[in-house]
Amino acid sequence: MTHPIETLYDVSRTHRTATASTRPEWGNMVGPFGGATVATILNIIQTDPEAFGRPASLTLNFAAPLADGEYTVDYAPVRTNRTNQHWTATIAQDGKVCATGTALFAVERDTLSTIEASPPQVPGPEDLQVAPFPPVLAWAGNYEMRFADGIVPGPEGTTGGSTVSTYWLRQSIERHWDYPSLGAAADTFFPRVYIRAGAGVPAGTVTMTLYFHASPDEITALGPDLLCTAEASRFHNGLGDQTARIWSADGNLLVSSHQMIYFKG
Amino acid sequence: MTHPIETLYDVSRTHRTATASTRPEWGNMVGPFGGATVATILNIIQTDPEAFGRPASLTLNFAAPLADGEYTVDYAPVRTNRTNQHWTATIAQDGKVCATGTALFAVERDTLSTIEASPPQVPGPEDLQVAPFPPVLAWAGNYEMRFADGIVPGPEGTTGGSTVSTYWLRQSIERHWDYPSLGAAADTFFPRVYIRAGAGVPAGTVTMTLYFHASPDEITALGPDLLCTAEASRFHNGLGDQTARIWSADGNLLVSSHQMIYFKG
Repeated sequence: MTHPIETLYDVSRTHRTATASTRPEWGNMVGPFGGATVATILNIIQTDPEAFGRPASLTLNFAAPLADGEYTVDYAPVRTNRTNQHWTATIAQDGKVCATGTALFAVERDTLSTIEASPPQVPGPEDLQVAPFPPVLAWAGNYEMRFADGIVPGPEGTTGGSTVSTYWLRQSIERHWDYPSLGAAADTFFPRVYIRAGAGVPAGTVTMTLYFHASPDEITALGPDLLCTAEASRFHNGLGDQTARIWSADGNLLVSSHQMIYFKG
Repeated sequence: MTHPIETLYDVSRTHRTATASTRPEWGNMVGPFGGATVATILNIIQTDPEAFGRPASLTLNFAAPLADGEYTVDYAPVRTNRTNQHWTATIAQDGKVCATGTALFAVERDTLSTIEASPPQVPGPEDLQVAPFPPVLAWAGNYEMRFADGIVPGPEGTTGGSTVSTYWLRQSIERHWDYPSLGAAADTFFPRVYIRAGAGVPAGTVTMTLYFHASPDEITALGPDLLCTAEASRFHNGLGDQTARIWSADGNLLVSSHQMIYFKG
């Protein structure tokens, strides 16, 4: 059986136009889970014969919802330097642009290396329950999430306080992590406005930027559990931001993620 | 006399190819200050007759240094929805791509509005000294920066500790703030690695994303002083990130800024 994440790697290409397809196992409330699109794009670029270095950043702008079905990704390296490479990507469906993206790849260089931020101090995954998600969120079935803080509000709403969520994330079917699957993991946070509004309100990511701090050897060495934490800084005029971090179980910062999320309410 | 920021708004256009020029008053160590490029691009898009709503986000990827002189900006709205509009931009010089960008514009909608983050608690600008910058950094002459924390290291290096910098920023020549000038302000942070390395090392932004939280009326109401704060989360493999916030003097969150910065050392 193909691992769910690997269904996203199955694309056909004619030079630098890839044809991909949404997958039922990555369905969201409406259309596909954004993290699946992240993983698909990252994998397409990463496996291009001219890709140089490893993913360092990815920005995706969601201009319109992807409908279930096929979509095309036109992508190109716009400039390659000694130490990095810049890519652009355009996702279209029925000839209309649904998303735009840019990616940075970078060569590993031996430099000063420090972690300035600190991981949240929470109980280990073995001491936390797996959170239930409704089956309509097919993508959530690909993960086990064990919340230490800020679980998605139930029908009784939230009790106020901060919009921080912190949870351990594991793939339901075990598989090593790679850049695309870490990219998908960075979009597993439900919209922060759910906590502030006390309930699910219509919400969706309009722009997302990921920074990959981890080098390939660090990703290869990862165990199954990632520590994920997210918070908002402001909700205003129908937009709210989200800043998130993904940590390894041993306290290494792997990914930072930033989003602007559209909401009603 | 034209205000320094307004020299950046002086571009010629043939449909959606704008020709802009670097300006001596915005010179950096090598080439132009990145914030000047931010302001130029934002202004070009914002003044397009089809621009819809107000700037909500901007991502710029710096693929190669801009040389002093003219450059072109090809830009286009890729999709306009009921509540937002997505743009792409490509900056080229001598026919080679120097930077790529994407921007999100959004309509103001009356929704839940809260500030989740807290501004740093620091003395007011009247109690802090203006930091000296070397004249070679022409752009810095357009600002007065009053550091409360994390000033750029002098020849004696830093004393370690955190990579946070917090300062009050004011335009040297008074002028109201607008989206482009706030965008420039969001790039006034010197690279965080200077603090960690204890000295200036070769460093430059490779990708930058700005989120504009403030609505136009909030920007119109701003006084001269902005409270700016930035920190890093990890330095590794020649890249370091930076997350920054710009606050109004009365504690309103105006802009969040995220960068990946290339460095040697």
